[in-house]
Parts: sequence; structure tokens; C-alpha cells
Amino acid sequence: QGYTVGILTISDTASADSTKDISGQTLKTVFEQASKGNKIFEVIKSAIVPDDFDKIQNIIKQWSDYEKLDIIITTGGTGFGVKDITPEAIQPLLQKISSGITHAMLAASLQKTPFAALSRPVSGVRGKTLILTTPGSPKGAKENLEAVINVLPHATDLVRGGTGEDIHMQF
Amino acid sequence: QGYTVGILTISDTASADSTKDISGQTLKTVFEQASKGNKIFEVIKSAIVPDDFDKIQNIIKQWSDYEKLDIIITTGGTGFGVKDITPEAIQPLLQKISSGITHAMLAASLQKTPFAALSRPVSGVRGKTLILTTPGSPKGAKENLEAVINVLPHATDLVRGGTGEDIHMQF
Amino acid sequence: QGYTVGILTISDTASADSTKDISGQTLKTVFEQASKGNKIFEVIKSAIVPDDFDKIQNIIKQWSDYEKLDIIITTGGTGFGVKDITPEAIQPLLQKISSGITHAMLAASLQKTPFAALSRPVSGVRGKTLILTTPGSPKGAKENLEAVINVLPHATDLVRGGTGEDIHMQF
Ligand code: NA
Repeated sequence: QGYTVGILTISDTASADSTKDISGQTLKTVFEQASKGNKIFEVIKSAIVPDDFDKIQNIIKQWSDYEKLDIIITTGGTGFGVKDITPEAIQPLLQKISSGITHAMLAASLQKTPFAALSRPVSGVRGKTLILTTPGSPKGAKENLEAVINVLPHATDLVRGGTGEDIHMQF
Repeated sequence: QGYTVGILTISDTASADSTKDISGQTLKTVFEQASKGNKIFEVIKSAIVPDDFDKIQNIIKQWSDYEKLDIIITTGGTGFGVKDITPEAIQPLLQKISSGITHAMLAASLQKTPFAALSRPVSGVRGKTLILTTPGSPKGAKENLEAVINVLPHATDLVRGGTGEDIHMQF
Repeated sequence: QGYTVGILTISDTASADSTKDISGQTLKTVFEQASKGNKIFEVIKSAIVPDDFDKIQNIIKQWSDYEKLDIIITTGGTGFGVKDITPEAIQPLLQKISSGITHAMLAASLQKTPFAALSRPVSGVRGKTLILTTPGSPKGAKENLEAVINVLPHATDLVRGGTGEDIHMQF
């Protein structure tokens, strides 16, 4: 009864050579450490796609609508580069926008570096899946996930249909 | 010449039993205390509706387009629950989005608790009415309103058509 | 190889009497001081338009699509006044929204004054031009630009098509 997680790395480079996907591995480690040996977060899907609008949307739809993962987290494609289209691909798929999670991630990362202003995160809900984006650098991805990981169980319980009143905080 | 206020509680529970509407009462108290015995804020409308898209939109339109209230504040329905649709109902009714008020509310509440990230507030203007949303818990509603109440008179004067230059700050 | 900048003042008052455009001059001074005598930022366009939807959109399109400026910064029209329509005019022209730059500007200015909540900034990218809005007051415009000016070279290099990996930070 843990939370199922999918980690999507969005990067032309990592897509061509999966050994370069440091950020995806970093996110997996953050989830494992937060689980403290218990099955709180279970990363059951990992994938790497290039900065391609349709490929990003297809896997997000697959993991939410069919695999019904509890949480999808992406790394990469949220910057100002010409190829960076992660927010544009994901935002239209969100049925509910989470201004609070986006704010918390930006606030935490701006306390570390002013260059956090160059990320363009989005977050929200599709069906019963919570979706969030993090930057492409391992450091940025880690900091953004750590900023909100303690509230993900509660958020996910609510998205699943719980009342939120019987939640035992796991952190 | 105070500011007229409508408080809208959005909750299936409180809709069925109005004695359970603690948050609406809490918001009313915050406005009264900020008025310090003067008629700065006058809460002239209060209502409770269930988490129903049309009912939320209808009362927002009624209070802004016909009652022409200066300020509408809601409590409830901004979370991640399946029934939480307040932002989705209100956002399309806003003619101007207020990123600043939303930011100020989130920043203030995140300083109190990381669970503030689970709110999805929106704020903005419809006609001459300033509209803001707060969480459903009494504590969350209070904290969010208190984060911005000192700037509401100035904001409302501008929305009404004032220049903002002749404003005497009331706080 | 500096960054070309256009400063757009949006104000009925300044449009009728350009000597009243203090904020546009203030922004120019901030760019000059950040350039420290080098050609880091080159303000090559300045204009004043009234709070007119079409006039705002036309000059933004002219400066991005035809003049291909690196950076456009506006001052004015982001408040709650009836005439304030800068965000509504500019947001539809943005191909990418920059939640991070908007967040950084609001966070910095809210640390100075709670009245920063009354600004409604937007920021993002159109073509190869980075576009940001600041408030109409000289103080507000200065504070908002200063909050992000150190990251603008990196952002602009990426928007231009650079990889971001060979950037030498200029600050
Ligand atoms: Na924000």
C-alpha cells in the first residue's frame, strides 16, 4: 500500500545514452531514502524520452490513464532552452493545477541559488495521478523533490479519494 | 464607505449542517478584528454551498455582477481531494489574475507549515469585485486572509476605479 | 555581443508627457549599472505607450518578432486599476511562461513591502526574446528588475539557442 512512482527523464542526451541519466537515478535515490526501508514510495516505472512534445505527452498519459501511478515526476526540459518544452507538454494534460506545490518547489530552490528562477515548473493532478516537474540537473531535481516529498503521501491519499482526515503522517 | 465583503464556504459537510461552518465564522472574525470597531470591512453576505461547480459559479457571479460586492473570499475546496474544484470553478470567472496575492498567501502559509503546499489558491478580479480563495481549515483560512488583509483596502480602491494616489492607508 | 534590451513604459500619464517617465529611466539606469561600463546590456529601444491593449501588443510583437531584441522589460499597468491591462495584453503573446522569474520577482519585492502583493507580473519567452513586466512605480520597477538581473544573461543565452554549458557568469 505504498505510493507507486514513475520517474521520467526528458533529455535528448540521456535519451541517446541512458548512462547519462544521472538525474533520474538521483530522484530514485531520494524516494528510496525517504522510504527508510519501508515501501512508502515504490519506483515501479522509469523511462527516458527526448525533448519531444508527443513522446512526453504519450508517456504521461500512459502512466496516469493506464498504469494509474500515484506519482509521476519528471526531470529536464523546464528551462529556457529552445528545446525545453516539458511545461508546455505537461500543463495541458493537468486537470487540476497545483499552485502550492509549484510555489513550494520554487521557494525552496531560490533559497539555494538565484538561478532557480530559470526553471519553469508546473504541477498538478491528472485522474488519480499527481504530476510534478523538476529541473534537468541532478542538484536541481533533488532540491525540488526534497522541497515537497514530505507532503506527497498526504497529497496522494487525497488524490486517490481519501478524506485526508485519517492520514497518519509518515514523516 | 467601508468595503463590502461576501464569505462563501464551499463544503459538502457544512452545506448539510451549517453549524459545522467554523471557517466561514473564522474569516468573519478576522474581518471584524481588522476593522477595529470601524466600518472598514462589512461582511454583508455569507453563504454555504456544496462542492458543486455550477453552484459555486452561480453565487460568485451573483455576488460580483449583481450584488457588486467589493470583496468575495471563499474557504474550502482548494485541496487535492476528488471533490475539490474551487479553483477550477473560480478561475474561469476571473477577468484579471492576481499572481501577487496568490503568491503572498502561499508564501505566508508555507512559513507556518509545509502542508500549505497542498492548497491550490487562485485570486483576481471580476468586474469591480476582488475574489480570493482560502483553504477549508479554520487555521488555513485565517492564515491566508491575514497574509493579505492589510493590502485589501488599497487593492479594492483601485478595483473600484480610484487612482490609488489618494489612498490613506488604514493599517 | 551584449544583450539588446527594449524598455516599454505603459502609462497614460507618461504617454501624454514623456518627462513623467521616471520608471523607464530608472530601469535604464539599472541595466547600465549592471553592465559596469561593458556592453553587457545595451538598451537600444525605449518607448512609451498608453494603457491600450492593441498598442501594447503591437510594440511587443514589433520588438520581438522584427527587432529580435534579447530582452523586453515593461513598467506599468500590472496593478489592480481599471486601466491596468499589461498582464492581459502580454500573457497571450508568450510562447513559454516563466513561473520561476515571476516567482523570484514577487518573492523579492514582498520582502520589501506587503503592497508588492498588488502587482500581477507575468514573464516568459516569445521567439528568441525574454519578456518581463515590472510595476509602474520607479521603486517597484527597480526592485523587480534587480531581483532577476543577475540571471538574465544566462537565461538569454539559452533563449538564443546556446546550451548553457559554456556560459561564463558575468556576475
Ligand atoms: Na508563485
